[in-house]
Amino acid sequence: MKIVRINMSKGTVDEHDVPKEYQGLGGRALTSTIVGREVPGRCEPLGPRNKLILSPGLLSGTSAPCSGRLSAGGKSPLTGTIKESNAGGTAAQHLAKLGIAAIVVEGQPSNGALQILHLSASGAKLVAADELKGKGNYETVAVLLDKYGQKCSIISIGQAGEMRLSAASIAVTDPENRPTRHCGRGGLGAVMGSKGLKAVVIDAEGGKRLELADSKAFGEAARVFAAELKKHGVTGTTLPMYGTNALTNVINEAGALPTRNFTSGHFEGANKTGGETQREIIIERDGLPQHACHPGCVIECSRIYHTNKKEYLTKGPEYETVWAHGANCGIDDLDAIAQMDRLEDDFGVDTIETGATLAVAMEAGLAKFGDAEAAIRMVREIGEGTALGRVLGCGAAVTGKVFGVTRVPVVKGQSMPAYDPRAIQGMGVTYATSTMGADHTIGYSVAPNILKVGGDLDPLKTEGQVEASRNLQIATGMLDSAGLCLFVAFAVLDSPAAFGAIKDMLNAQYGWELSDDDVLAIGGKTLAKERAFNKAAGFTSADDRLPEFCYTEKLPPHNKVFEVSDAELDELFVPVEEKYQE
Amino acid sequence: MKIVRINMSKGTVDEHDVPKEYQGLGGRALTSTIVGREVPGRCEPLGPRNKLILSPGLLSGTSAPCSGRLSAGGKSPLTGTIKESNAGGTAAQHLAKLGIAAIVVEGQPSNGALQILHLSASGAKLVAADELKGKGNYETVAVLLDKYGQKCSIISIGQAGEMRLSAASIAVTDPENRPTRHCGRGGLGAVMGSKGLKAVVIDAEGGKRLELADSKAFGEAARVFAAELKKHGVTGTTLPMYGTNALTNVINEAGALPTRNFTSGHFEGANKTGGETQREIIIERDGLPQHACHPGCVIECSRIYHTNKKEYLTKGPEYETVWAHGANCGIDDLDAIAQMDRLEDDFGVDTIETGATLAVAMEAGLAKFGDAEAAIRMVREIGEGTALGRVLGCGAAVTGKVFGVTRVPVVKGQSMPAYDPRAIQGMGVTYATSTMGADHTIGYSVAPNILKVGGDLDPLKTEGQVEASRNLQIATGMLDSAGLCLFVAFAVLDSPAAFGAIKDMLNAQYGWELSDDDVLAIGGKTLAKERAFNKAAGFTSADDRLPEFCYTEKLPPHNKVFEVSDAELDELFVPVEEKYQE
Repeated sequence: MKIVRINMSKGTVDEHDVPKEYQGLGGRALTSTIVGREVPGRCEPLGPRNKLILSPGLLSGTSAPCSGRLSAGGKSPLTGTIKESNAGGTAAQHLAKLGIAAIVVEGQPSNGALQILHLSASGAKLVAADELKGKGNYETVAVLLDKYGQKCSIISIGQAGEMRLSAASIAVTDPENRPTRHCGRGGLGAVMGSKGLKAVVIDAEGGKRLELADSKAFGEAARVFAAELKKHGVTGTTLPMYGTNALTNVINEAGALPTRNFTSGHFEGANKTGGETQREIIIERDGLPQHACHPGCVIECSRIYHTNKKEYLTKGPEYETVWAHGANCGIDDLDAIAQMDRLEDDFGVDTIETGATLAVAMEAGLAKFGDAEAAIRMVREIGEGTALGRVLGCGAAVTGKVFGVTRVPVVKGQSMPAYDPRAIQGMGVTYATSTMGADHTIGYSVAPNILKVGGDLDPLKTEGQVEASRNLQIATGMLDSAGLCLFVAFAVLDSPAAFGAIKDMLNAQYGWELSDDDVLAIGGKTLAKERAFNKAAGFTSADDRLPEFCYTEKLPPHNKVFEVSDAELDELFVPVEEKYQE
Repeated sequence: MKIVRINMSKGTVDEHDVPKEYQGLGGRALTSTIVGREVPGRCEPLGPRNKLILSPGLLSGTSAPCSGRLSAGGKSPLTGTIKESNAGGTAAQHLAKLGIAAIVVEGQPSNGALQILHLSASGAKLVAADELKGKGNYETVAVLLDKYGQKCSIISIGQAGEMRLSAASIAVTDPENRPTRHCGRGGLGAVMGSKGLKAVVIDAEGGKRLELADSKAFGEAARVFAAELKKHGVTGTTLPMYGTNALTNVINEAGALPTRNFTSGHFEGANKTGGETQREIIIERDGLPQHACHPGCVIECSRIYHTNKKEYLTKGPEYETVWAHGANCGIDDLDAIAQMDRLEDDFGVDTIETGATLAVAMEAGLAKFGDAEAAIRMVREIGEGTALGRVLGCGAAVTGKVFGVTRVPVVKGQSMPAYDPRAIQGMGVTYATSTMGADHTIGYSVAPNILKVGGDLDPLKTEGQVEASRNLQIATGMLDSAGLCLFVAFAVLDSPAAFGAIKDMLNAQYGWELSDDDVLAIGGKTLAKERAFNKAAGFTSADDRLPEFCYTEKLPPHNKVFEVSDAELDELFVPVEEKYQE
């Protein structure tokens, strides 16, 4: 395996074998290790000393089910912390087939030039791409696929990334060649934009099939893993049937669906935007009610959403996107939400951050809650780069600051997603302590709190929440490094056989002899490295806190505040750092 | 002496004797002590848990020369640190005459109502002031003086404070009843706005003359102090003759005048904007070339600036204001600078932060360097509250973020003032370590580095800079607490008699027996309390650093970067915290 280093200051491309210190790492473990070793903690996120790392997971490119995640890493312009954000799509598998463990993008052009990186079996090269300036992801992808062939994968940024807006995402093409899968969180699209890198084109034709140390054992473990995923209620039934948006009604019933900028946990229009309704609309309009975002996915929670004229509009908006633009903005119109999803994928901004930002703007009085037309107009301004659009494109914290809003739902500058931490206390623990600002995927406490997967905790009580979040964060660090979709966690949490299959696949692929503990250590060590980076960047336990209103405003209908004590939060990483710090 | 506490949530006013824990404190020592005890480190600066403290200095209201400074304190919405910002004008002396050691503004109205606080010998009361909504400081002051009498002092906010913009200032009227003296730095005007407090009207008629423990000794010490101030070259000759703007040519000659957003230390148009030219213009137009910003000032560095039609325009813009809008924006037109000074005083925004922000906006391409008309137009947008205006009104850090500029001259979110830290290394030490973000007044290393006052350090070398900044910061903490104008420091640094006179005045006023060490401990203890607050707010030594470009870009003409090591910076507060932490 090799690392492709491109230096945008010098315009150079260097391909070299993975050096010793990075061997045996993939996905988030690799991006966070490289950032920790090579990026100064206090550096300017949009300056030449930050780096953007793109890395497929350890299992990506194999037949391991759901192993097609691409990790992007760097110092976040949104949070100032380390950041890893991963997406599905076809890029990770194609990179792995070219034998690429990571792309490291360094430096910064002094002339504002825009380039693309072209990767193929014959090597890596930078190509001038000024003709793509100012284009959205959809047009960028269309132009590049026309030029380089429809079998390529594209990793790209839209206008938001070029404008270096701190909520900018990095888009990855799905199997239909659409830029619908995004490394959304933390503004890594702005880092890519600051490097003058518009896109990475991956032509995997002629790439080799990955060599496996023990292909028979690997195949057996992969079959067990697929069977476990099919067997579990969430991954085998709910997600294929209703997608992630199955959660809208579930979380609303739990009184934890943040509504109108986190002023209630219950939205009267929830069902109109939920997965059941979405499924009906999609079927009625000849969309795809079940779809895989990358080859080899056996869950198929993705879908394709059509307009009422039965034409492609966007992928089926995910639960968090539906929430961010729906309940959180008081909007109960799925078509309006889907339009915003499409615009945001095209401009390249995180849908969670953007929806949360719209609600803050509504609280500031820029539009009324529920006014879908005004919300769409605001989203358009992001792509247009007006002063207001740029503010919104920098996320909820900046928007709150500019418009004097104090109820801003962010931790370390990043918006809290679709689960109110006052009604799901475990989620608050994860938001507060996450190494990357408020994030649900980094330790999905919803599982034991609400879905009763991997445990059974009372979501309104604090007991056991810190330990559960810690274990989830360790396990997730491992999954993100393996390149596995987070959703496999549902099966892994409930079934030792599923966890064992991951261990067996890793051992069979690399000829390792990892124990269960060794597998978890992949996650634990990654967390310890991320914490060390954040410390160097100036973060302390005082930053591991929820926004003030979560402690002072009771959330209806449960009328609870966040009750996990500071001391308990500060305990979360103590055993992690003791055990895993290198 | 008493404390006036107003609770804006409840609309209550409470006057009570100064409690034990706050006795013997004044000015910054009192504001920082109250903030440290009563404001949670992690609280939302514009929320109900922050407090705004207004306090005259220990010597304010007496005949001590130059003792009329008013301290404003709170948690800063600009920096997130503790903040004290002080101003001249007549308010501090009037508060002292009413026996008021501090006004503590708590809570927040839920209905957005605007009120004023009226203080007189017959007590304190809140009065509805919705008719003042959206008015600038000049009109606000005119309306209030019409209503309450021309002898009142007014402390007020303009549109920026009402909009809660993080660069908003608090204006204090000068002896001519104009709102020209500002607690400028750190956005405390936004805190006042967040409390719904438009103004404080102080009617000192009927207030008592301050009682002095030993009035004869006090008078003698005050005479010595005045004589020392008259004798020193800076306070006796330069400042009266040319005002603070005497520095433009001096700092330009030193190669340390930040030009066009800190890309050079030399501005070819410096002399056109310097104090010598300003003096000629003022005299030619029948302005006032020498003026006291508060009664009892014996330095008289203030002035009054007329238009070319010989009509009042604004106070003589201070050196840092001239620099911020002049060299730093490539503008060499004093009239344009004075127009912006007037607008910013009226809207109520910090002139340093605003000028630094304009330069960042110019670097972003919003206007060309040197385009005075465009700069004035941008300043007007702040008062109008357009989206762009609000961004600019939130200062350089937010503006840089929104427009993707990475060369942003801020420390802890606050703009570096008019002395490039690469050409005056000692100033960089103060900027980096200040408890309040980049600030020149908190430890004016320019004195030993350039003016050769209080020592003689090579500005391009690192030797001795940390120790000098430490000592200056301790001494300044004392001066800010005594209510003395910072400029007395020039005499104090060079003359033991001047320092002794301060000690003697304090002892004679309060019947104390302070030693020299005790006097300095007023400053040292204040710094230790401020550091403790910042630690609770989440700041670490990683925040005590200059912006990246100061370490990576050489500043012409000396072609130096900032060279004081992180380890040296981290040493600065070690002895302070050892000695003064309580």
